[in-house]
Amino acid sequence: MIKAGIIGATGYAGGELVRILLGHKNAEIKWFGSRSYIDKKYASVYRNMFQIVEDTCLDDNIEELANQVDVIFTATPQGYLSSILNEDILKKVKVIDLSADYRIKDVSVYEAWYQIEHKSPQLIQEAVYGLCEINREKIKNARLIANPGCYTTCSILTAYPLVKEGLIDADTLIIDAKSGTSGAGRGAKVPNLFCEVNENMKAYGVTSHRHTPEIEEQLGYAAGREIKVNFTPHLVPMNRGILVTEYAALTGMATYGQIKEVYDSYYADEKFVRVLDKDVCPETKWVEGSNYTDISFKIDERTGRIIMMGALDNLVKGAAGQAVQNMNLLFGEKESEGLEFVPVFP
Amino acid sequence: MIKAGIIGATGYAGGELVRILLGHKNAEIKWFGSRSYIDKKYASVYRNMFQIVEDTCLDDNIEELANQVDVIFTATPQGYLSSILNEDILKKVKVIDLSADYRIKDVSVYEAWYQIEHKSPQLIQEAVYGLCEINREKIKNARLIANPGCYTTCSILTAYPLVKEGLIDADTLIIDAKSGTSGAGRGAKVPNLFCEVNENMKAYGVTSHRHTPEIEEQLGYAAGREIKVNFTPHLVPMNRGILVTEYAALTGMATYGQIKEVYDSYYADEKFVRVLDKDVCPETKWVEGSNYTDISFKIDERTGRIIMMGALDNLVKGAAGQAVQNMNLLFGEKESEGLEFVPVFP
Amino acid sequence: MIKAGIIGATGYAGGELVRILLGHKNAEIKWFGSRSYIDKKYASVYRNMFQIVEDTCLDDNIEELANQVDVIFTATPQGYLSSILNEDILKKVKVIDLSADYRIKDVSVYEAWYQIEHKSPQLIQEAVYGLCEINREKIKNARLIANPGCYTTCSILTAYPLVKEGLIDADTLIIDAKSGTSGAGRGAKVPNLFCEVNENMKAYGVTSHRHTPEIEEQLGYAAGREIKVNFTPHLVPMNRGILVTEYAALTGMATYGQIKEVYDSYYADEKFVRVLDKDVCPETKWVEGSNYTDISFKIDERTGRIIMMGALDNLVKGAAGQAVQNMNLLFGEKESEGLEFVPVFP
Amino acid sequence: MIKAGIIGATGYAGGELVRILLGHKNAEIKWFGSRSYIDKKYASVYRNMFQIVEDTCLDDNIEELANQVDVIFTATPQGYLSSILNEDILKKVKVIDLSADYRIKDVSVYEAWYQIEHKSPQLIQEAVYGLCEINREKIKNARLIANPGCYTTCSILTAYPLVKEGLIDADTLIIDAKSGTSGAGRGAKVPNLFCEVNENMKAYGVTSHRHTPEIEEQLGYAAGREIKVNFTPHLVPMNRGILVTEYAALTGMATYGQIKEVYDSYYADEKFVRVLDKDVCPETKWVEGSNYTDISFKIDERTGRIIMMGALDNLVKGAAGQAVQNMNLLFGEKESEGLEFVPVFP
Repeated sequence: MIKAGIIGATGYAGGELVRILLGHKNAEIKWFGSRSYIDKKYASVYRNMFQIVEDTCLDDNIEELANQVDVIFTATPQGYLSSILNEDILKKVKVIDLSADYRIKDVSVYEAWYQIEHKSPQLIQEAVYGLCEINREKIKNARLIANPGCYTTCSILTAYPLVKEGLIDADTLIIDAKSGTSGAGRGAKVPNLFCEVNENMKAYGVTSHRHTPEIEEQLGYAAGREIKVNFTPHLVPMNRGILVTEYAALTGMATYGQIKEVYDSYYADEKFVRVLDKDVCPETKWVEGSNYTDISFKIDERTGRIIMMGALDNLVKGAAGQAVQNMNLLFGEKESEGLEFVPVFP
Repeated sequence: MIKAGIIGATGYAGGELVRILLGHKNAEIKWFGSRSYIDKKYASVYRNMFQIVEDTCLDDNIEELANQVDVIFTATPQGYLSSILNEDILKKVKVIDLSADYRIKDVSVYEAWYQIEHKSPQLIQEAVYGLCEINREKIKNARLIANPGCYTTCSILTAYPLVKEGLIDADTLIIDAKSGTSGAGRGAKVPNLFCEVNENMKAYGVTSHRHTPEIEEQLGYAAGREIKVNFTPHLVPMNRGILVTEYAALTGMATYGQIKEVYDSYYADEKFVRVLDKDVCPETKWVEGSNYTDISFKIDERTGRIIMMGALDNLVKGAAGQAVQNMNLLFGEKESEGLEFVPVFP
Repeated sequence: MIKAGIIGATGYAGGELVRILLGHKNAEIKWFGSRSYIDKKYASVYRNMFQIVEDTCLDDNIEELANQVDVIFTATPQGYLSSILNEDILKKVKVIDLSADYRIKDVSVYEAWYQIEHKSPQLIQEAVYGLCEINREKIKNARLIANPGCYTTCSILTAYPLVKEGLIDADTLIIDAKSGTSGAGRGAKVPNLFCEVNENMKAYGVTSHRHTPEIEEQLGYAAGREIKVNFTPHLVPMNRGILVTEYAALTGMATYGQIKEVYDSYYADEKFVRVLDKDVCPETKWVEGSNYTDISFKIDERTGRIIMMGALDNLVKGAAGQAVQNMNLLFGEKESEGLEFVPVFP
Repeated sequence: MIKAGIIGATGYAGGELVRILLGHKNAEIKWFGSRSYIDKKYASVYRNMFQIVEDTCLDDNIEELANQVDVIFTATPQGYLSSILNEDILKKVKVIDLSADYRIKDVSVYEAWYQIEHKSPQLIQEAVYGLCEINREKIKNARLIANPGCYTTCSILTAYPLVKEGLIDADTLIIDAKSGTSGAGRGAKVPNLFCEVNENMKAYGVTSHRHTPEIEEQLGYAAGREIKVNFTPHLVPMNRGILVTEYAALTGMATYGQIKEVYDSYYADEKFVRVLDKDVCPETKWVEGSNYTDISFKIDERTGRIIMMGALDNLVKGAAGQAVQNMNLLFGEKESEGLEFVPVFP
């Protein structure tokens, strides 16, 4: 039985992690950390857990936690984990970080985009970027996993095979992303009120969203060089789901069949990536509640560009589901254990 | 392995049945019946099932189906099953009917409310009303289960203990029910279009909704006499969920503690009924995607009435989940097998 | 030109008041009061007003305001106006209060339900309850208008004729009310976040909502005696709209035609109350953005009860629209001036 | 008084046209044409019009209509108007066509994208493309107005000044558009059901949407040459609103101030185009129910691209509002008459 602790268990990603781990055969949650709700019953914060979770929220004592559990999940604000993590902890316990603290190898890039001083840069190199479909083998032996961002996971998986194979010019890549509102977290802010989001659509963080350098770094590895992309997130009046629409110039003539074959060669054996049939576009509802990423594409011969589309559930494959997938790899579990949710429709 | 066939697999309740049975350890779906989509891949109708279900939709041949499976679920229009079901079929296979055909013992009441002639009235007496928490023992030995309606399940479970114990005057019972739109089915009708439902709220079927006699019959058994209630359903701009607010006059003085004790005595051992803590009102989101019914109440000393509230997911405990719960009882499976979903939030 | 000042111009009701007054031929807004946004451009708080309103938010100086304007609208927290209003101000200016401070004649009832000490009880008797359809003549000569609550307006208008005519037993009245989320205001609170409200339905304030005594007082005047009612509000995942479903025992035999005639005799000449045709139920969408209240009813002969239904836009007829209707009456304007919005659909 | 007739008065755009014309001082609707609802009261189809519109729906007799009215609005399926329009009719009456029949000058392009044979190509050249901000003078003297599409209006107005001034390379233009569901019309189709749209987001018509050639033609005039763009529409779970996010390469170095100045030079005097302040992104909710288009932009120095954003209400500026704006120009009315709605928020 894997003993797991969660720091930040009362955010939306933390809550989803609890939901998923409760269904995992070989894992049990030993620590529901939440500074905001210390000593409150967890099920009074998330009432879906009534009569399911009897635990009470605990403080964020990572030292103590490291003694008690096998793996710590941190779903905490940017900069928090990097300010408390150290070699002693990593000697005792695996850490899967859902924040961005160890995702970006170049600490100056991190500090520039996040406007935070990184307090443990010595650990960055060791951290493995936990995009399972791409870094599976590295993950297995890691101590510290940088669990990818929600937009990032969707954006990268959708374009990765074509960038890697040089079929698109990565510098022409434009990513127009749309997200459900749970991605904005559970903080009480006016722009996230029901009446402000409902019946509304907007872009935000235009040219400045923090997932941009993460996408550039990872797709840069695939391209074999530094790249710059446009990434524009939008807020959609729905709870869950990310849809990305990605545009890029094809580097040469390519047929539907050729591109499809490339996608299939990368993803045919990947349980959690579904390359859709011809002319089927991904919809967020078809993956809701599940760990799947659905991908498809369309070639526009008129403009010489390809439109790639991807959809996932931002709280599952975009956060907690991928974190558990990483845990499974770290502990030698079946990779899909606890994650075999059939998407919920409608 | 229980072999299951579904007639009406492409409605919303049918789709949910597929989702649930896919997670059941000892059941497998052998027949995806759907007259509207014969020969189409099931996963092209419900794309959440892509790469999960490879089957193709079949015709509704119940005779043939009875030879191939152990249990048939029918999620079909009113009057359909009663026009084709017979003794021969019931000798071969268990039938769990999600339509209303066998829910009402008095055939004249059925025919009056449904405006349909019942074609197999001889089977009505045998059918067991499949509200598991109330009829558990009878269900175990049945051949034909009348799976309760969504509004009905919620309405009955919420009031049942107090009616049974005579704590409320059943003739004063007023049920104001609110349902998500999946309850209206997947038929293409203007009133169910997104723009007609979204940002809108309305009552419908006022004084004439077909779940009324079903509630009256079942609560009448609890009361030990015929009763008449007011039942008013409303359409809510959400996909899933039923909330009922029920009003009744208390028959005598009663404290919160006394009433709570009664609820607990009926439901403390019921996994799928959660009697909430004092002053917590049920919310549909806290049960979404799960088989739970959440119940609470509030006494209004000023008026001498009690307000009872219940919430469930209309497609799970209100339809497919309860059907699988019935199947588990029929086949000696653990009652909660395949149904241990933690509610999805948000 | 009527010069108007608004205290609390940046709440949802305040914003709606601005929208409505901008379309009024004989009114102009001279003061956009908002303690939270002093010195900020009003159009930066409500961007729909960009290039339409150039003003900046001002402090809540009612003394100064009374010198500058003809009418003050207060859309402020409970207890605020009663703590600053006095005879001097009322000598200079008409006041239309959208809070509850002067709605309830019995100060002890107010203080019990609101848990606030009333600081100017001497002004309560003078205040006129501004439900235009019922108190039209009194309103015309008032100095201080207690603008009714949103739930209250809908609840009262829906039942009023039948209570007044003694056709229903007012003590059996049960009001089940459903409201869009703008009724909860623009405060940043977790329960009002998009992800908490969307896809969710719940009751709140059960047996204790503050609009209860207001309904009881006003319908009590109609009944000619003190009455007690059950009032249960619910939160609906939509921005605007209130729907009430009201249940009461008929005092005698009554036909559809008789009841309809009574409604018509009260409302046929009322522009803003529409008694719907037989078998048509009100829907909030059909009144959205307008000052209408739609009403209909259904007799249930089986139970001897009548189900009355009403719908309005909580920010218009339930708040700002009614406030402007009151202003029109106070200043001898055409009662519907500025309020002739056709409902927006879809 | 301008006498107006509407063919297709019961679609969403037709309904919005009615709403707007009812508030127009110098126009009256003489003919509510609707083949689907002949002889039905208009207010029974759109109940928001109860007690406001007493008329009954009429057949689509354009010959008769031409004798009775001054202007005919056609909100009809593609190909319908072009099959019945002729010189005789145009001699008697102005025609404002909300369908696409006369929007595209090259009939072969129309026929290729719409897969319809054009039945009156001789009238195409005469038709004036009714984008008021760009073709104002031509519109004034026209007989036949091709009222622009919803996506098109938003897409063109957002990019027009920069294309016209050569500040962006029009061939790099990528338009990612998001639309509320009313754009899909009121036809009863499964994909437009509430449960299919709600909590869902998808692209559709990728590389093949019919508004593409319309955008290319109009922006091509601005560019002074033929251009090809990528246009990808998405369906958003909201009733109204279009948001476009447009990406293009800047042709040279440009500062925020320089670009802003260009936008202002085109739109400062345009009542219905609002160029937002720096760092403010358009949101559909801020223009809902109004005739405004809100526009802003952001330069991405890292990629040398500019991101332009625009928002409008698809049923107002994207359809019925613009049609009335055209009518005002045709008849010498004040251009904003009947269109001075303040956007409705929330």
